[in-house]
Amino acid sequence: MMQIRPAAAAADHAAILAIVAPVLRAGETYAVARDLTDDQMLSYWFAPSHEVFVADADGTILGTYYLMANQAGGGAHVANCGYMTAPAAQGKGIARAMCLHSLHRAAERGFRAMQFNHVVSTNGRAVALWQSLGFEIVGTLPGAFAHPTHGFVDSYVMFRAL
Amino acid sequence: MMQIRPAAAAADHAAILAIVAPVLRAGETYAVARDLTDDQMLSYWFAPSHEVFVADADGTILGTYYLMANQAGGGAHVANCGYMTAPAAQGKGIARAMCLHSLHRAAERGFRAMQFNHVVSTNGRAVALWQSLGFEIVGTLPGAFAHPTHGFVDSYVMFRAL
Repeated sequence: MMQIRPAAAAADHAAILAIVAPVLRAGETYAVARDLTDDQMLSYWFAPSHEVFVADADGTILGTYYLMANQAGGGAHVANCGYMTAPAAQGKGIARAMCLHSLHRAAERGFRAMQFNHVVSTNGRAVALWQSLGFEIVGTLPGAFAHPTHGFVDSYVMFRAL
Repeated sequence: MMQIRPAAAAADHAAILAIVAPVLRAGETYAVARDLTDDQMLSYWFAPSHEVFVADADGTILGTYYLMANQAGGGAHVANCGYMTAPAAQGKGIARAMCLHSLHRAAERGFRAMQFNHVVSTNGRAVALWQSLGFEIVGTLPGAFAHPTHGFVDSYVMFRAL
């Protein structure tokens, strides 16, 4: 049985780091420095503004996501999330389940929309998944991501109302 | 004679705050909390990632802007800026001069493009100015800004290569 639950800061750190570290080090999908230390990666994922959840299958963490306000002030009604799935759990609907959970949680917190600021266009699986969940590409940032193997590629801004 | 020069952190604080505070308190153009204290506003404008400049006319500060990387990692080649002009100096080309300065400075620092993430659509003067300086609207964020008088209005993502 998989449940999506709030991350327990200390107890889940090792499992979350095991998911987050390879993704950030590869640097193919997140516009985040590729040389962060373990502590810096955890500080990033558990930033004060982030509400962090994990996908927990009988004690095994298969994925994690954070939810935050994308902007402050006049932009505080739009949410933002980042999702990561453990390599061994790819293709099993974990990211979809986390995104659905996040849409529900964001609405519960009073957000009116969700925005992804920088979906790397070469991350086709993610683009298709977000589209299948109602997100639209509302902007294309030309050459805005320096991919380690593909060079400069476009990123998308994706958006959906809640 | 107006020159655009790096801000001197302590000496320019009062003049910068006199420009920044009313803009943030009005909350019509920046997606930033409207209730920041003076210290919080200065901390925001002088964030560690910000390179801050002022437009200085014979000792009178008419405007200020910051330059930063819009993202880290694979997005670190795209710059971002925020500009503010003193109310008494509106319509005199100060914002245009600061933007031109920032484009030059960003190129000098090795950035390959500049992106504005959240240009409030009701800020027509800014939209037109950025367009006249080569920026294109590459995305529209529907209802992404809660304007204090107009309600939910669109924001634009604007982008230009350097």
